[in-house]
Amino acid sequence: MIVKPRDRRALTEAALGKRPCDLVIKNARIVNVFTGEIYNGNVGIYDGFIAHIQCDPDNLNISEKELQSEYSYDAKGKYLIPGFIDAHAHVESTMMTPRHLAEAVIPHGTTTMVTDPHEIANVCGTEGVRYMHENSSNLPMRQLILIPSCVPAVPGLENSGAVFLEKEVRELLDLDRVIGLAEVMDFLGVINNDERMISIIKAVEERNLFLEGHAPFLSGRELSAYLCAGPNSDHECTVSQEAREKMRSGMYIDARESSITKNVKTILDGVKNFRYFDTLTLCTDDREPEDILSVGHMNDVVRKAVSCGLHPIDAVKCSTINVAREIGAKNLGAIAPGYAADMVLTESLEELVPSAVFFGGKLVAEEGRLTAVIENMEFMLEKENTIYIDDLKVEDFKIKTPCSASDGKVKARVICYKDFNSSETDIQIEELPVKDGYVDLSNSELKYAVVINRHKGFDTKGYGIVRNFGTHFGAVGSTVSHDSHNLTIVYDNPENAFEVARSIMEGGGGISCAKDGKVLETLALPIGGLMSHKSCSLLAEDADRMKRALRTLGLTQKENPLLRIATLALPVIPKVKMSDLGMVDVLEQKILEMFVL
Amino acid sequence: MIVKPRDRRALTEAALGKRPCDLVIKNARIVNVFTGEIYNGNVGIYDGFIAHIQCDPDNLNISEKELQSEYSYDAKGKYLIPGFIDAHAHVESTMMTPRHLAEAVIPHGTTTMVTDPHEIANVCGTEGVRYMHENSSNLPMRQLILIPSCVPAVPGLENSGAVFLEKEVRELLDLDRVIGLAEVMDFLGVINNDERMISIIKAVEERNLFLEGHAPFLSGRELSAYLCAGPNSDHECTVSQEAREKMRSGMYIDARESSITKNVKTILDGVKNFRYFDTLTLCTDDREPEDILSVGHMNDVVRKAVSCGLHPIDAVKCSTINVAREIGAKNLGAIAPGYAADMVLTESLEELVPSAVFFGGKLVAEEGRLTAVIENMEFMLEKENTIYIDDLKVEDFKIKTPCSASDGKVKARVICYKDFNSSETDIQIEELPVKDGYVDLSNSELKYAVVINRHKGFDTKGYGIVRNFGTHFGAVGSTVSHDSHNLTIVYDNPENAFEVARSIMEGGGGISCAKDGKVLETLALPIGGLMSHKSCSLLAEDADRMKRALRTLGLTQKENPLLRIATLALPVIPKVKMSDLGMVDVLEQKILEMFVL
Repeated sequence: MIVKPRDRRALTEAALGKRPCDLVIKNARIVNVFTGEIYNGNVGIYDGFIAHIQCDPDNLNISEKELQSEYSYDAKGKYLIPGFIDAHAHVESTMMTPRHLAEAVIPHGTTTMVTDPHEIANVCGTEGVRYMHENSSNLPMRQLILIPSCVPAVPGLENSGAVFLEKEVRELLDLDRVIGLAEVMDFLGVINNDERMISIIKAVEERNLFLEGHAPFLSGRELSAYLCAGPNSDHECTVSQEAREKMRSGMYIDARESSITKNVKTILDGVKNFRYFDTLTLCTDDREPEDILSVGHMNDVVRKAVSCGLHPIDAVKCSTINVAREIGAKNLGAIAPGYAADMVLTESLEELVPSAVFFGGKLVAEEGRLTAVIENMEFMLEKENTIYIDDLKVEDFKIKTPCSASDGKVKARVICYKDFNSSETDIQIEELPVKDGYVDLSNSELKYAVVINRHKGFDTKGYGIVRNFGTHFGAVGSTVSHDSHNLTIVYDNPENAFEVARSIMEGGGGISCAKDGKVLETLALPIGGLMSHKSCSLLAEDADRMKRALRTLGLTQKENPLLRIATLALPVIPKVKMSDLGMVDVLEQKILEMFVL
Repeated sequence: MIVKPRDRRALTEAALGKRPCDLVIKNARIVNVFTGEIYNGNVGIYDGFIAHIQCDPDNLNISEKELQSEYSYDAKGKYLIPGFIDAHAHVESTMMTPRHLAEAVIPHGTTTMVTDPHEIANVCGTEGVRYMHENSSNLPMRQLILIPSCVPAVPGLENSGAVFLEKEVRELLDLDRVIGLAEVMDFLGVINNDERMISIIKAVEERNLFLEGHAPFLSGRELSAYLCAGPNSDHECTVSQEAREKMRSGMYIDARESSITKNVKTILDGVKNFRYFDTLTLCTDDREPEDILSVGHMNDVVRKAVSCGLHPIDAVKCSTINVAREIGAKNLGAIAPGYAADMVLTESLEELVPSAVFFGGKLVAEEGRLTAVIENMEFMLEKENTIYIDDLKVEDFKIKTPCSASDGKVKARVICYKDFNSSETDIQIEELPVKDGYVDLSNSELKYAVVINRHKGFDTKGYGIVRNFGTHFGAVGSTVSHDSHNLTIVYDNPENAFEVARSIMEGGGGISCAKDGKVLETLALPIGGLMSHKSCSLLAEDADRMKRALRTLGLTQKENPLLRIATLALPVIPKVKMSDLGMVDVLEQKILEMFVL
């Protein structure tokens, strides 16, 4: 049981009025997610849970002794809704620690998040998951954890910092706030009965825990096969028709509105005529600090759903009780006796700006400010430099051609981005100039790329050539490089690359760019090479500076130029990506030779 | 996990078409409980589960290789709905064994029942529950079992054949098809934190199993307290307002349509304007053999709901996936990949007469006839005579007056039924004639009543006097006598009572009536004194004969005169009832002295 009153006896007594409540929220317009009604009432809270609600929606003039409590909060007739539950999110994608993220999202009304520490797991293994678990303990919100299912994402094609098999997953399932298995993204492994996936799913299913899915574009028989294998949710739905088919198949659709990927409208366009939305939920997946500061968190996703035509009460339901049911959490996601006293007070169900946020029956934020105290804690892992790269030389960034390239030219496979915005790529064979036995791009639109394994015990480096990456000149590098988070650099010449690498390694990981042999800007992410020690607002400033620097190099994406480099080494996005082993043919699942001889 | 594919690998392969399906149901009008849609499709089944559904609801002209199978069933365009799930039922109330009940209900489309073996538990204890579990094994339907929570129903006021404390409940939770705790009817015990109830609830909650509630008329703070204690469902809702309040409080409402108690209309009247019916389900609770034969089982309840204005698709949803979610059963209650292949084919969603019933992917009934074979099995408990009463004499049925009653009269408490139909009673003090030191009702409208403990190790007898019971003359007795199932007899004179007792004891339990010193009719219920070895149709004939005999004595209730005697010793219905310890003040929870001196 994920959420459960600590002492049911005492809670029962509070309900009966035998002991005073800790707090009574008075004069609220309660949104009831069971009936879809809205009515006035007073909510009595004891030890973090709702003990009793005084209300009279049918105007029966019920006389009842008033809820007794030393403390009351006047809701002044505002709407009281259950606290938002984020159905799927990666804390690491915010570059904040769980504690700093909490600080940032609580004022927006997010009281529970279902998180997947997939990134840190790929870097630090089980210790990384344990760190996220500890770091998110004793917060004035609830960060539930799913155990990453695919570490590494694509075995055999990349080397990450850890390998999760059944044993690691079983071990982590014992942690307190762990509720299941995170996005089972190796859907090919699942439907083809790959031993790794099947044994992991079995371990989780044995405990009757939640199996989160991940099934972009899966359809027809393959979708059925995936569902037959166990996972039954998806946050990767990006097409209206896809959403329709998946909901018909009984899959939970976690409609995503991340900083980059906005699927809520498309999904609603697809399913809005359905009679039921029981299996529709909302999630943020990846939200950047600036975004959280400026537009919000789950409240922004819900607002978007409402603006796209979802009835506000349905939208509240989708972001509360529906998620609780999806993950199998009782006593969560509703304003009712016995439910966790996580609630949001708001003036408008369309605007969804919280005027107060309650978590576990305590006021934790008011008018956009966190009022709860989040204690500072120290963690061993935060002090560890996780960048295990031996001394680099400028020469390491040169790409040697094979002996046969003696005529000043060489045929090589080049990764071509569709355009400057899309992360989709194709491969094409081009003739490249050669100088002194090395590929020479000094007068080319093409750029060099390298993925340097930065995990303990590896010294692999994979090289590639990219077209349409976006930078006109200079080098950009990052240890936020999904999913193995090796140091990935795209560069115009070895000197710039070297500077970028040096700066990132000094900071214990992060993102950096250089031009003319000088570092322009570095965003240090010393925790696992993924997260910062800074708060949301400070980090947003850093990120803003970093983005501006990247834009000067030519990365002009409106959304987030930081992500351009971060997805070059994501070998699950077709058709060709990079890894520390070289260029990867994503569909064929094999490493490609760079040179065509 | 209650329902789970045996081999997910093989099921996945069947979905992909890598292995043939066991059966394909073709040309069906599929009712989708996730979206509320109805569309044409073919359903491929493998090893009891749905592997894949071929359909094209959006007319996209999807081309897909046809589902391969040696066997197919032509649905001829009829509606295909998930098999009905009965949210709450007592097998013993049908007087049939689990196997015979299965035989009777499957042709009506009930493929899963959530059963509470409360009656047999009160007689035979844990062995009784084990018997029901074994007897319901390997059936062409799924009988899930909840562990009786209140054995005896009212400790201290009656002696039943068993006592269930935490230990017994924990032991039984290990059985295969056990999914939780049955109707927690001692709601006073629950909200007052009685040790018995709290420890039992805790044991079940620890395993994250289902806590079924039972909370007639509970409202306001007491309802909140009950919910705070854990149970969150109720099948005892009989008032529209009550249903509204309970659904608002997040309680699952199992709307009951038993043979006697018909609540569906009242409940729907109360909640029909709610936006959501996620927490509304349907159940039979207690259905008699004649009823099952003549009007049906869950299909009749659903039909009733539709006739009361619930949209047919909502009604199907309430009787399928909603129940599955209530009890925490994944893969049950829908027609979707990975779900149990329990389905009903029907020509009309208003009539709901199944033309075919599939369970676990097999055709189990067609056109009202069971086509599956239910194997005969022998059980030790069925051979045991559970009536442990020492030899009775006619004198045992005389009520001795206290010495002080020397003037031919005595003041005594009399149980007065409100009328011949209601089971509600009050107490009143009346002056009774005395003859030879015994109460003499030979010229009175009043009747004697006795509850003779019939369990091993007891020889208690409780006496009472009743007014308005209904019989004009003769005696009627029964070992079906809720909840302790002691032998209860209401009689005009000791001779008739003696004959009734003798006949019942000879049959190993049952119901009997006598007049003028002769037994008129006996319905033998030799299994635990509660159930017969007979099939539904034979039992219906027996019951019909018995009812006619009872009517000749004056029990003219339209519904079921058998139940008149069965509820006299039910010490949870106000205000006064009987037990083997005497007359019981239900509200004050104490035994009443018969004579007022």
